[in-house]
Amino acid sequence: MSESAVNRQVLLRARPDGIPQAEHFALVAQPVPSPAPGQILVRNVYLSVDPAMRGWVNAVANYAEPVAIGGVMRSFAVGRVAASRHPDYRPGEIVTGLFGWQDYALVDAATIERKVAQTDLPMTTALGVLGLNGITAYFGLLEIGRPQAGETVVVSTAAGAVGSCVGQIAKLKGCRTVGIAGGAAKVHLCRDEFGYDAAIDYKHGDLAAALAAACPGGVDVYFDNTAGPISDAVHAQLNVGARMVICGTASVARWDPPPQAPRVERHLLVKRARMQGFVIFDYAARYDEARAALAGWVRSGKLRYREDILQGIEHAPGAIAGLYRGENLGKRLIQIAPEA
Amino acid sequence: MSESAVNRQVLLRARPDGIPQAEHFALVAQPVPSPAPGQILVRNVYLSVDPAMRGWVNAVANYAEPVAIGGVMRSFAVGRVAASRHPDYRPGEIVTGLFGWQDYALVDAATIERKVAQTDLPMTTALGVLGLNGITAYFGLLEIGRPQAGETVVVSTAAGAVGSCVGQIAKLKGCRTVGIAGGAAKVHLCRDEFGYDAAIDYKHGDLAAALAAACPGGVDVYFDNTAGPISDAVHAQLNVGARMVICGTASVARWDPPPQAPRVERHLLVKRARMQGFVIFDYAARYDEARAALAGWVRSGKLRYREDILQGIEHAPGAIAGLYRGENLGKRLIQIAPEA
Repeated sequence: MSESAVNRQVLLRARPDGIPQAEHFALVAQPVPSPAPGQILVRNVYLSVDPAMRGWVNAVANYAEPVAIGGVMRSFAVGRVAASRHPDYRPGEIVTGLFGWQDYALVDAATIERKVAQTDLPMTTALGVLGLNGITAYFGLLEIGRPQAGETVVVSTAAGAVGSCVGQIAKLKGCRTVGIAGGAAKVHLCRDEFGYDAAIDYKHGDLAAALAAACPGGVDVYFDNTAGPISDAVHAQLNVGARMVICGTASVARWDPPPQAPRVERHLLVKRARMQGFVIFDYAARYDEARAALAGWVRSGKLRYREDILQGIEHAPGAIAGLYRGENLGKRLIQIAPEA
Repeated sequence: MSESAVNRQVLLRARPDGIPQAEHFALVAQPVPSPAPGQILVRNVYLSVDPAMRGWVNAVANYAEPVAIGGVMRSFAVGRVAASRHPDYRPGEIVTGLFGWQDYALVDAATIERKVAQTDLPMTTALGVLGLNGITAYFGLLEIGRPQAGETVVVSTAAGAVGSCVGQIAKLKGCRTVGIAGGAAKVHLCRDEFGYDAAIDYKHGDLAAALAAACPGGVDVYFDNTAGPISDAVHAQLNVGARMVICGTASVARWDPPPQAPRVERHLLVKRARMQGFVIFDYAARYDEARAALAGWVRSGKLRYREDILQGIEHAPGAIAGLYRGENLGKRLIQIAPEA
């Protein structure tokens, strides 16, 4: 299955103040463990790099327990069963779950989120468009944003793994879609690859003016992956009854103390608008429903995705910081073993 | 009906920068008009003074058109038909509507919100507990806040005309109620008259600590009439799935430019919480439903109210500023004619 004689692991060495950087992690090598009865040994092939991982290493209470200092960095991964002492799993099967940033994960069955059934699609889709990125877009947009045909949907980090799905699903639902992204390459990707009706480079020119031009009928749904000044500009152009999905806060490097921002209450009151936070894990019982829809759209070419694949686990420690610098074009993954 | 030979009117003289003060209004005397065919002349008895009137005189777009400079100040009022050339209205009938700060309102039938049917209750209730204050509390709490029995509901301006109803309705629905008000007199009113389980004086001591002590199980619903630092303190103690009803912004004197505040996005995200703005006029088609429930609770003694009645229209110009200073204990009204 793999040539590795050791299990390389990325451990959390220190808790960052803000965005985790390479120096907050340590790469170590351990013996490859063997499964006890009931356990499964997974050979990770792709590791996921997600903005949410920033929250997982913070000491502040979050929706998940913080990763322990000295513990393997929590992450989604997709790989193959290398050895199994569980009757439901056989060597070679493709599985995905929170396997962590390591070559091998020794897990019990409860840690395996699923066997990957969509073997006609690339293995990487298990972590991106058919993983939590796509599922987050699906439920966040449809359940919290509740877009109606003809409405205008604005998406921040519009070219990212979640944002690009949001824009395309909104388009499939008959909405006008406006993406906000940083830099010309991402703006082009929004327009040419992800079908946004308009795309705005927030790093260039007057964002408020660009938003007003791109949203002549105002903003009905805002899928917010950033918080920060991008969101403040969107808040000023909400329509009556607007819905805001608070999915991520990529623009905010530190929450302790919380940064200051223009108060939102008057916008919300006058526009009878709604801001609502969203954590995908609350929808765990319905993942299959989303995955079926997403896989269908991928197969029919209606849902496109981009990937940014780093080669080698040694890139993991700096990969989150790079994400927050916006250096990736597409879903960031780290390949640490051959696919087959 | 009245001894007035003239129609005294309070006109908007200048647009305030922030809270309207006495000097922004002018008291003038005009001849009493006569109804043309289809019109009704209403002799106002009580004028309403509401926090929302601040928004009605601002030039900034709101949910209602601004009052014109030189125009009669918009307000709710209750009075009696003095003369009618409309077949549906007869002299002596009690009516309420946006009749303005004046002795007499010459209106067409569409301006009359309703004939007051609850003649067993004091006339003033038409403007308070059975008027938009009570109806705002009813729909804001039940439709936006959606409290469940056993949950903790926190109310700002808890002793006010809206807040006192919110607290009592939440209690009727089986919630633990925590009121926030300014000063010992209002805090006592919250506890002794309006039945809050706990009441906090935000002007005295550490609000965050007092909130934590009053809400040991966290905050499930926040009915927000203030915005400002009171709200910031509540946001820090939200439970997962909390709902915030943005009903008013009494703590914010000026919105241009908007004041700075700690960003709310992380609270909303981590707690999957919702902030939603609310304007009662969106529920106009359902006012009767609310009024029937409210009147029933008033008659059975389950819903109490306090009034702060100024005597004479000459008190009108300074009455909004006084409200924002918190000088009233209960629903502020101005009596300008005898009841009968």
